[in-house]
Amino acid sequence: MRISRIAHPEGMAFVALEGGEADGTGATCREIAGHPFGEPEFTGRTWSFDEVRLLAPILPSKVVAVGRNYADHVKEVFNKSAEHLPPTLFLKPPTAVVGPGAPIRKPEWATRVEFEGELAIVIGKPCKDVKRDDWKSVVLGFTIVNDVSSRDLQFADGQWSRAKGLDSFCPLGPWIETDPDFADLTDLPIKAHLTHDGETETKQDSNSNQMIKSIPEIVEWVSQAFTLLPGDVICTGSPAGTAEMVPGDTIDVEIPGLGHLVNPVEAY
Amino acid sequence: MRISRIAHPEGMAFVALEGGEADGTGATCREIAGHPFGEPEFTGRTWSFDEVRLLAPILPSKVVAVGRNYADHVKEVFNKSAEHLPPTLFLKPPTAVVGPGAPIRKPEWATRVEFEGELAIVIGKPCKDVKRDDWKSVVLGFTIVNDVSSRDLQFADGQWSRAKGLDSFCPLGPWIETDPDFADLTDLPIKAHLTHDGETETKQDSNSNQMIKSIPEIVEWVSQAFTLLPGDVICTGSPAGTAEMVPGDTIDVEIPGLGHLVNPVEAY
Repeated sequence: MRISRIAHPEGMAFVALEGGEADGTGATCREIAGHPFGEPEFTGRTWSFDEVRLLAPILPSKVVAVGRNYADHVKEVFNKSAEHLPPTLFLKPPTAVVGPGAPIRKPEWATRVEFEGELAIVIGKPCKDVKRDDWKSVVLGFTIVNDVSSRDLQFADGQWSRAKGLDSFCPLGPWIETDPDFADLTDLPIKAHLTHDGETETKQDSNSNQMIKSIPEIVEWVSQAFTLLPGDVICTGSPAGTAEMVPGDTIDVEIPGLGHLVNPVEAY
Repeated sequence: MRISRIAHPEGMAFVALEGGEADGTGATCREIAGHPFGEPEFTGRTWSFDEVRLLAPILPSKVVAVGRNYADHVKEVFNKSAEHLPPTLFLKPPTAVVGPGAPIRKPEWATRVEFEGELAIVIGKPCKDVKRDDWKSVVLGFTIVNDVSSRDLQFADGQWSRAKGLDSFCPLGPWIETDPDFADLTDLPIKAHLTHDGETETKQDSNSNQMIKSIPEIVEWVSQAFTLLPGDVICTGSPAGTAEMVPGDTIDVEIPGLGHLVNPVEAY
């Protein structure tokens, strides 16, 4: 099932998207009563996809991100091997989250702002100390995240919270796919297409098979550190190919089966 | 006014503490209707301080912390000068927050766990890009925070989110003092008393006059990076004197005018 959060003519709602094309066109949006965790109940209200606007599919209480989870990205950013710089965890604040289509707003003082297209896990149940084999039992589903990062701030601050945590630096969406078997998660293409001056170039073109820590290992590791709450998001790390974005650009992160997360870049 | 959040015989509530001793003994707890932001309304219900239990005075949507804001602490932890390692920002997750008296739970794999007693700012209004001279207009009040940190994890991970973000690693309290003039904030003693094997020693004995970035500068800096929401907490940095705690110890952070934040340490 595809779950999204929408702005509709009368307000906002969680909905299930039914039917329609891969990009949602023509789908029916069936309103979910209350929250989307557990077995959803439906109110009976529906909208057509074309009359609604997609919002970030969830508002997480925290966003935990795995840094340095792809060896080729470690090399391109830090110029070191992944043995010297193993995966690490960091946090992005909830105020960084925006939805599909919302602008990534770049302050002038945040320079070298790059996209990082990633697979994101959405937690479905309160949990702690989840064993890797049980990871599916605590997951609501999957979506796409763009772990937007000002490289200059990242290196200047040492800690990454500001560089990766500015308002709008966590685009999320377009929706949550709740079927953990929507694809082979160990062999999932991850792409990012950057449009600059009207020309589109595919910058990231990698695969989840390059992850250093696997998805079951990540859920075990993160839940060992932090109690996870329904709606919390885990960003599984960015593959190589990240590049600078400037105001006027558009960035499109694509994961087959999850769709496209597209955001314009604006000056703030 | 002192605002706290309490567990009372029938449930939980925000209350104003009126009268009583400096440590709250004998105070009357007047229930606040709804939330404590803006001019509070009272329900008329009251409890005596002795029949309630203090909880973390607020549940923040995010905890932003200033690292390396006291030169002597930079020296003791990093063995470098503050010119080489200027103040930086990091995030602690909401799930790390516990109240006064609640145990700090130390997992076996989190080694060299130290206390860091700090002054905390609680935000009262949604805000962004606050000018330093306007800082008071967005602040609900002040409390004490213990920025508990596993030094070994901190250095191993590079990013501090795990070392400083484990469940229970953000004791907060005992209450929020809403009068910004409760003391001279530029000359505020900050102490931490560690009880180990029945002996109590004062380990931190410093003063906010040692801060590198002042409170107005911190509010400006943090709100430049992140939209702040009511209840968000800013930890203003730890002075020198931090030391290891082990299960069985009790740590008491004291700031005159704000009281004592006391937490036992337990094995998890």
